[in-house]
Amino acid sequence: MATISPSRRLRRTPFSDGNEAAGVKGYTVYNHMLLPTVFRSIEEDYRHLKQAVQVWDVACERQVELRGPDAGRLMQMLTPRDLRGMLPGQCAYVPLVDETGGMLNDPVALKLAEDRWWISIADSDLLLWVKGIVYGYRLDVLVDEPDIAPLAVQGPKAEDLVARVFGDGVRKVRFFRFGWFEFEGTWMVVARSGYSKQGGFEIYVDGFDNGMPLWNALMEAGRDLDVHAGCPNLIERIESGLLSYGNDMTRENTPHECGLGRFCDTQTAIGCVGRDALLRVSMEGPVRQIRALELDATSVPPCDRIWNVTDARGARVGRVTSAALSPDFGCGVAIGMVRMTHWDPGTHLLIQGPDGPIDAHVRETFWN
Amino acid sequence: MATISPSRRLRRTPFSDGNEAAGVKGYTVYNHMLLPTVFRSIEEDYRHLKQAVQVWDVACERQVELRGPDAGRLMQMLTPRDLRGMLPGQCAYVPLVDETGGMLNDPVALKLAEDRWWISIADSDLLLWVKGIVYGYRLDVLVDEPDIAPLAVQGPKAEDLVARVFGDGVRKVRFFRFGWFEFEGTWMVVARSGYSKQGGFEIYVDGFDNGMPLWNALMEAGRDLDVHAGCPNLIERIESGLLSYGNDMTRENTPHECGLGRFCDTQTAIGCVGRDALLRVSMEGPVRQIRALELDATSVPPCDRIWNVTDARGARVGRVTSAALSPDFGCGVAIGMVRMTHWDPGTHLLIQGPDGPIDAHVRETFWN
Repeated sequence: MATISPSRRLRRTPFSDGNEAAGVKGYTVYNHMLLPTVFRSIEEDYRHLKQAVQVWDVACERQVELRGPDAGRLMQMLTPRDLRGMLPGQCAYVPLVDETGGMLNDPVALKLAEDRWWISIADSDLLLWVKGIVYGYRLDVLVDEPDIAPLAVQGPKAEDLVARVFGDGVRKVRFFRFGWFEFEGTWMVVARSGYSKQGGFEIYVDGFDNGMPLWNALMEAGRDLDVHAGCPNLIERIESGLLSYGNDMTRENTPHECGLGRFCDTQTAIGCVGRDALLRVSMEGPVRQIRALELDATSVPPCDRIWNVTDARGARVGRVTSAALSPDFGCGVAIGMVRMTHWDPGTHLLIQGPDGPIDAHVRETFWN
Repeated sequence: MATISPSRRLRRTPFSDGNEAAGVKGYTVYNHMLLPTVFRSIEEDYRHLKQAVQVWDVACERQVELRGPDAGRLMQMLTPRDLRGMLPGQCAYVPLVDETGGMLNDPVALKLAEDRWWISIADSDLLLWVKGIVYGYRLDVLVDEPDIAPLAVQGPKAEDLVARVFGDGVRKVRFFRFGWFEFEGTWMVVARSGYSKQGGFEIYVDGFDNGMPLWNALMEAGRDLDVHAGCPNLIERIESGLLSYGNDMTRENTPHECGLGRFCDTQTAIGCVGRDALLRVSMEGPVRQIRALELDATSVPPCDRIWNVTDARGARVGRVTSAALSPDFGCGVAIGMVRMTHWDPGTHLLIQGPDGPIDAHVRETFWN
C-alpha cells in the first residue's frame, strides 16, 4: 500500500508525538484525523492487547458537544434509543439515523448534565447534521467540537494502570459509566468503555497540551505492566463483533440490519428523526443482518472493498466488509451482512475474495 | 511517513485500478475516499502538468444532488452567493457557511436544471448539513450522493485530448460552463474547470463501471500527447492560489477571511444561512486574510500542521497552512492567513517552521 501524504487537513492529535516515538507503522484517517492502525504488527499488537495493557490515541473520536436548555430534547431527536431514564455520569451507545432510518453514525453519548452532552462520534461529520437540525428547528442549544481528545487504555491490566495515574477511585467506575478525575490540575472524564472487549477505560483528555504529559505518565506508570502504545486492533474488534461505521454499515443500513434493533425504542422515543421509518422496520424485521462469519482459511487478504457473499450456486446472498485471520481461533473471522434466507447459524457460504472463493459458515455469535 | 491501512471505509474509486497500474506512490483521504497525491515525484508531476496533459482521479469530489421543486430555494439557502442569474449549464464556485458565517465547504455548484443541482464538494460531509436543513425546513427536495465520479483532464494539451474522446464540441465549452457529451452510450457532464490553472476539463463520470473504460480511452487517445496519470499538485495549486478546505480554511473562517468576499452577495442573497453574520463582516471587513507568502528558502519541509507566522520581534501575526518549494519560481511558496497589521505586499515575516524560522514576505498576488 502507498504512503499517506502529510497535510494539515489530516489533523495530528495531542498524542501524535507519542505514536511516532513508539514507531507507529500504519495510519488510517478518521474524522479528518490520523488514527494509528499498527505498531509492531497487527498480530503482535493483538496478542499484547489480550495479555497486558495498551494506550491508544483515539483522539479521532471527536466530541460533538450539545449545551443549552434544548440539549436533552435535541439528543432525543437524534436517536431512536429512549434516553429518558439516563442519568448524568452514564454513557449510552446510540444509533443515529436520518429520516429514512439510515445510519448516520453510531456514537457513544455521554450525559454530563441535564443541559450538556457529548456525542463521541464514529467517522462522519455528525456535527454538520446536528447543526442543520438545530438551525432548522431553531433550538436553544450550542453545538460545537470542544478541545477534547479521548485516550483509551485497554487490556486486562488497564484498570491497574489507570488507577496508578488517576487513583483507586476509577476502580469503582462501572461499565459505560464515567466519573471526573484530576490529572495535573485538570479534571477529566474517565469512562469505563473502549473499542475492544479486553476491558479498560477512555480518558477524555481536556486540552491539547495535556495530551503528551498524560501519555508519558501512563507509559511511565505502566512500565512493569508491559504497557505499549497500541490502537484499535482489526482482529480483536472483529472477534468481538465491534462494528465500524463506514466499513460494516453506512447510510444504506438501518440499525436493525446492523443488529442494533435493541437500541431502538421506536414506541417510546417520541420525536426522534427516522421514527416512522424504523417503526415499520421494527414491525417487519430486517431482510438482511450483520452476522459473524467463520472462514475456512489459513490466510485472509486485506478487505479494502466489499466482498460478495454467495451460496454454492453463485447467487449473491450478502457481503463481507471486515475480515482478518484470527491467531487465537485458527480461522478467518469476518463481519458480513447476510440475507435472511442464509443467515441461520451453520449455513455454508462462499466469500468471493480477491484471490478466489473462501468457504465460510454463519456463526451464532461473535468470538469474544 | 507511515503507510495507509486499507479498509472499505477509505473508499476506492472507479479509477483506483488505473492509479495503481500507473504506480501511484502516495494517497490522502478526502471525503472518505482515496485521492492520489504523487505518481513520479511531486516535482516531476508538476513539470509534466505544466507541459503536457494529465488524467486525475478526483472521484473524491463527491456530488450532493438536490432534486425537486425546492432545489433552487435550498441551493440559495446554502450560499451567500446570489445565484438568481445562474442558468442551466453553468458552474459556480460557492462558499457555503453556517449560521455564524463559518466556512462549511467551498464546492462548485452545477445547475443541471431549475429543479436539479449538483454540489461538487470539498472535504466535509456536506450531505449531512444539507439533509439537516431539509429536514428542519421540511423542504420538497431529495438529497443524495449519486454514483458520479469526476475525472479531471488538466494541462495545456487537455482540450486536444478531451476533444479526441468526446468530439470537437467540447472546444466550445467556456470556462465554468458544461455540456452533455456521450461516451460509449452514456451521456455525461463535461465542464471546463479543475483544480489547477493549467486549463482543462472535469468529466462527471456517470456509473462506477464506466470509470476504467473512459480512463483507458483517454490514456490510449493521448499517447502522443504524453498523457500521464496525475493528481492535484501541491506546488502548482499553491502557486495558483487554489485554497484547500481543511488546510487553508475551516469552520473557523469566514469567506471574507479566505479572500472569497466577492462571492458573497449579502445584500441580495436573501434567505441564505449566515447572512446576518456575513453582512456584519462585509461592512467591517476581515481582520485577517489569506495571502500569498514568498519564502526565502531552498527547501521547504512538509506542512503537516499550522506554522505560526511572526513579526521580527516574535509576535504572532498569522499562520501558514500550505507550503512547498517552487521549481519555476525558485523560492518557497505558501498560503497563509495574516493579520491586517502585516498583510500589505512586501511586509517581512518569519515563518516558524519545524526546522526554524524562514524569512518570507507578503506578495500582492499568487504566482500563476
